[in-house]
Amino acid sequence: MTNSGLHVDINSDVGEGFGAYKLGDDAAILDIVSSANVACGFHAGDPEIMAATFSMAHEKGVAVGAHPSFADLWGFGRRVIPHSVGEIERLVAYQIGAAQALSAYAGHPIRYVKAHGALGNLTQTDRGVAEAVTRAVKAVDPSLTCLVIALGFQDRLARDAGLTVRSEIFADRAYTEEGFLVSRKLKGAVIHDAEQAAERVVRMVKQGAIETVSGQMLKTPIDSICVHSDTPAAVAIAARVRRRLEESGVRIKAFSEAA
Amino acid sequence: MTNSGLHVDINSDVGEGFGAYKLGDDAAILDIVSSANVACGFHAGDPEIMAATFSMAHEKGVAVGAHPSFADLWGFGRRVIPHSVGEIERLVAYQIGAAQALSAYAGHPIRYVKAHGALGNLTQTDRGVAEAVTRAVKAVDPSLTCLVIALGFQDRLARDAGLTVRSEIFADRAYTEEGFLVSRKLKGAVIHDAEQAAERVVRMVKQGAIETVSGQMLKTPIDSICVHSDTPAAVAIAARVRRRLEESGVRIKAFSEAA
Amino acid sequence: MTNSGLHVDINSDVGEGFGAYKLGDDAAILDIVSSANVACGFHAGDPEIMAATFSMAHEKGVAVGAHPSFADLWGFGRRVIPHSVGEIERLVAYQIGAAQALSAYAGHPIRYVKAHGALGNLTQTDRGVAEAVTRAVKAVDPSLTCLVIALGFQDRLARDAGLTVRSEIFADRAYTEEGFLVSRKLKGAVIHDAEQAAERVVRMVKQGAIETVSGQMLKTPIDSICVHSDTPAAVAIAARVRRRLEESGVRIKAFSEAA
Amino acid sequence: MTNSGLHVDINSDVGEGFGAYKLGDDAAILDIVSSANVACGFHAGDPEIMAATFSMAHEKGVAVGAHPSFADLWGFGRRVIPHSVGEIERLVAYQIGAAQALSAYAGHPIRYVKAHGALGNLTQTDRGVAEAVTRAVKAVDPSLTCLVIALGFQDRLARDAGLTVRSEIFADRAYTEEGFLVSRKLKGAVIHDAEQAAERVVRMVKQGAIETVSGQMLKTPIDSICVHSDTPAAVAIAARVRRRLEESGVRIKAFSEAA
Repeated sequence: MTNSGLHVDINSDVGEGFGAYKLGDDAAILDIVSSANVACGFHAGDPEIMAATFSMAHEKGVAVGAHPSFADLWGFGRRVIPHSVGEIERLVAYQIGAAQALSAYAGHPIRYVKAHGALGNLTQTDRGVAEAVTRAVKAVDPSLTCLVIALGFQDRLARDAGLTVRSEIFADRAYTEEGFLVSRKLKGAVIHDAEQAAERVVRMVKQGAIETVSGQMLKTPIDSICVHSDTPAAVAIAARVRRRLEESGVRIKAFSEAA
Repeated sequence: MTNSGLHVDINSDVGEGFGAYKLGDDAAILDIVSSANVACGFHAGDPEIMAATFSMAHEKGVAVGAHPSFADLWGFGRRVIPHSVGEIERLVAYQIGAAQALSAYAGHPIRYVKAHGALGNLTQTDRGVAEAVTRAVKAVDPSLTCLVIALGFQDRLARDAGLTVRSEIFADRAYTEEGFLVSRKLKGAVIHDAEQAAERVVRMVKQGAIETVSGQMLKTPIDSICVHSDTPAAVAIAARVRRRLEESGVRIKAFSEAA
Repeated sequence: MTNSGLHVDINSDVGEGFGAYKLGDDAAILDIVSSANVACGFHAGDPEIMAATFSMAHEKGVAVGAHPSFADLWGFGRRVIPHSVGEIERLVAYQIGAAQALSAYAGHPIRYVKAHGALGNLTQTDRGVAEAVTRAVKAVDPSLTCLVIALGFQDRLARDAGLTVRSEIFADRAYTEEGFLVSRKLKGAVIHDAEQAAERVVRMVKQGAIETVSGQMLKTPIDSICVHSDTPAAVAIAARVRRRLEESGVRIKAFSEAA
Repeated sequence: MTNSGLHVDINSDVGEGFGAYKLGDDAAILDIVSSANVACGFHAGDPEIMAATFSMAHEKGVAVGAHPSFADLWGFGRRVIPHSVGEIERLVAYQIGAAQALSAYAGHPIRYVKAHGALGNLTQTDRGVAEAVTRAVKAVDPSLTCLVIALGFQDRLARDAGLTVRSEIFADRAYTEEGFLVSRKLKGAVIHDAEQAAERVVRMVKQGAIETVSGQMLKTPIDSICVHSDTPAAVAIAARVRRRLEESGVRIKAFSEAA
C-alpha cells in the first residue's frame, strides 16, 4: 500500500445540548469530521437534539455512533459516578438502544459505540468498566463497532470478545511513556497550538504509532483521531488537523465506511 | 371457532419502581398476566429495573412490551406534559429503543408498544398524539405490535399505517355509551368489586363487545384485558378476572404468541 | 416631585445556566440593570450558579430576587406544567427558601420574588396561580417584595394580601388594549428595534402608563422595566433603554433600595 | 442530676418518598421519635412531601430538622457523588433554605441540620466535608443546631465553629474500638435483635459512652439515638428502644426543646 492509500477517520462529540441549552458548534464540526459521537441523553442530549443531530450528520455524510455516559447531566458526564460494573453494563445498553431507535428514526443508523467522558476514561484504565461497556455492545448489537482509546483496556477486551474494534488517538492530548493520557492537572497535558497538534497527528498516523511526551513512538493501530468542538479554538484545531492530514496524502474516511 | 378455542391476553404495567423505590407486586402480577408493559425510565423504571423485569417475565413465560410515557417521574406519567406531536414521536422512539436494548440484553425481546398513563389516554382521544405514537413505532421497528385502547384513535390509525394492532379493554373501568372511559372524577368510574369486574370482562370477551354503563354492547375486537397491580386489591381483581375467564372456557394467551 | 426626581428600576433574568451550560451574558446585563432575577434550580440554575450570581450582583451593586419556576429544566420553565394551586404554592416556597439561603451565603440577601416564564405569565392571567405565588411569599417571608406584571392578577392580589408590590412593564413587548401582552404568535408582539423600544419605555415611565398597540395610555404604577439578556441584541436593547431613560432625566434605581 | 432527670432524643429519617413513591411508615415512626430528619428533595422528598411531613410532625409534637444529601435520587443519597467541598457547602445551603421555607410554610420551623446517607458518613470521616456542612449551616442560619455523629469530624469542627452541636449514636449499628461504625460489609455490623439493640442503647445512654464490639465504653456526650423507619422491623426496634429507655427512667425529649 502506498501513502496515497493511507486513510484515517476523524471523530468528535456532537449533540451535546439539552433543551434550551446549546454546547459546541455542531454544524461546523460536522463539516470536518467523518464520524460523530452523539450524546444519548445521560450527560447531554435529548430526543429532539438526538434526532436533529442524526439528521444533520446524514445530510453532511458523516457516520454516527452512540456516545453513552454516566447519568450526570449536571457534571456533563465528567465525574465518576459510583456504579457496579453490572449497572454500567445496563446503563450503556439503555443508551445504545435509545440511539439506535432515534438514528433509525432519522434514517441514519448508528454504526458504533464510544463511551463518553469519565466513563470513556475508565474504559482505558479499568478492566471492569471496559468489560461492562463491551458486554453491553455485544448484548444489544454485536454488529456495532467499538470505538476505543488506543492501548486502553477496552482496546484489547473488545477484540477478545469478537467485536469489531477501531482505536482512536487524541489530537490535542499529550501521552505518557505508557501510552496513557497525561493528567489534565499536569502542565502540557493539552496541546493548544493548532499547527503543533496537526503536525503531531500526521506523524502518528503516518507511522502508526502514538507519540509520547519524550518523543517515543508506541506502535499501535490508529483508526481515528478524536477532535473537540466545544470552543471556536477547538474547531480551528480540528480543521487544521484535517487539512494537514489531507495535504500529507492521508484521506479522511469514516472507519465504518466500506473501503 | 367454538368457545373452547376462545382466547384472550391479559396485560399489566410492571417495572414501575425507581432506584430504591418499589411500586406494585411484579412477581405476583406476572403469575397472572400473559403480557407485561415495562416502564422505560420516563415515568418510572431505570436500566436496573428494566433488565430485572424483562428477566423475571422471561422466567415466568410472560411476553413483554415497551411502556413509554411523558418524561414525568414526579407525576408518574399521569400528567399531560405540553409537547408538540413531533416531540412526542421522538420521546416515544427513544423509549422504545431503550426497551429493545435492555430486553435483548435480558434475552427476552419486546413484542409490542403500549403508551402509558396520560400519554396512553391521549392516544385514545387525540388524533395527533395517536399518530405520533404510531409513527414512532413504525420508524423504529414496524414489526412491533401496537397495543391500543379499543375504539380509540390509535386503534384505527395504527391499522391504517399498516402496523399490527391489538386492542385492550380495562377490567375495572366503566365505559360511556361512546366507548370512552368514564372520567375518574365521576362516581362509578372504577369497579372495585372483583366478582363484578370479572363477570363483566367475561361478558365482553365472550360477546366481543364493550359493555357501557347502560348495558349497551359495542362490538369491537378485544385482544387483551388490562389489569392493575399497584395495590393488593388490584392484584386480587386481576386474579379473579383470570380465573373467571378460564372457568368460562377462555384461554389466557399472549397476543404476541403464535396461535 | 419634579422630573429630576423621577426614577425607575430595570430588571432582568440571570443565573440561567446549568452545570456546564451557559445562557445569556450575566456580566454584561448586570452592568445595566438595578435588579436581577436569579433562577432557583427548577428551570435553570444550580447551587453553584446561584451563589456565583448572587456574588456577582453584590459586587456590581445590583439588588437580587428569587425567580421561581415550574420544575422544567428541559422546557426552561416556558411550559405550563399541570399542578394544583397548592402544589404551585409549595414549589414556589421551596425555591424562595433555596434562594434565601444561597443569597445569605453570598452575603447579598434577596429582596423580592418574581415568577418565571410560564408561571409568571399565569400570575398575570390566572387568579389561582396568582394567589398561590402570593401565599408562598407571605408564608415564607412577608418582608419580601412581589415583583409582578403591571395590571395582572397578582398585581392586585398581592397588594390585597398586605405585601409590598412593585409592578413591571416589558421593554420589548407590545400590549393589548386591556394591558395584556400581545401573544408571541401574533405579528408585532415583540419590538426588535432598540430605539423604538427605548422611546416607548421613556413615554410609559414619564406618563406612568402602559402604551397599547393603538397608542392608548393605561394609567398604572410602573416601578420596573423588564429587559432581556439571552442574546447580544437583547443586551443592546437593554443598554439603549437605560441610556434613554437617563438622558430623559429618569434615574435608574432598584425598587428595593431606600429612596 | 439524678437518673430521673436523664433524658435523650430519638431521631429518624422521614419524608423519604418522591411523587407517587412512598418509603417507610412516617406516621408510625413519628409516634416514637422526638426529632425528625426531613429529606430536602435531593435524595428523596419533594415540596409536597416536605410540607406534609413538617405538618404531620407538628401535629405529633416532633421537632424537625433539614436532612440534606448529595443530589442522587436514583441512589437515594447512599453514593459518594464527586464534588469539591465548596460545591458541597452550596448544595447543603440550598437544601437548608428549602427546608426552612417549607417548614415555615407548615408553621413548624426546622431547628437543626443533619447530613444524610453518604454525605452524613463523610461528615464523620472526612474533614473537608465536615467543614463544608458546618460552614453551610453557619452561613445560612447559625441558630440551627448541627446534629452530628458522635466522635466524628463534624462533632469537633462544628463546636469549634461556635455552633450548637448535638451528637447521635445509632441504635442498630456496631462500633469499632475507635468509635467508628463497623462497615456494613462486615458480619455483625447491624444489630437485628430489637431487645439486644434496646439494651445496648440503655447502657450507652446511662453511661454516656459508646459501646464498641469488644465491650469497651468510649466516653462521649450522647444527645440523640438514631433509629430507622424504612421497614416494619426497623420501626419495631425503634419502639423497643424508646420503651426500654423510658422503663429505665430516661425521658425522651427533643434536644431542641427547652429543658
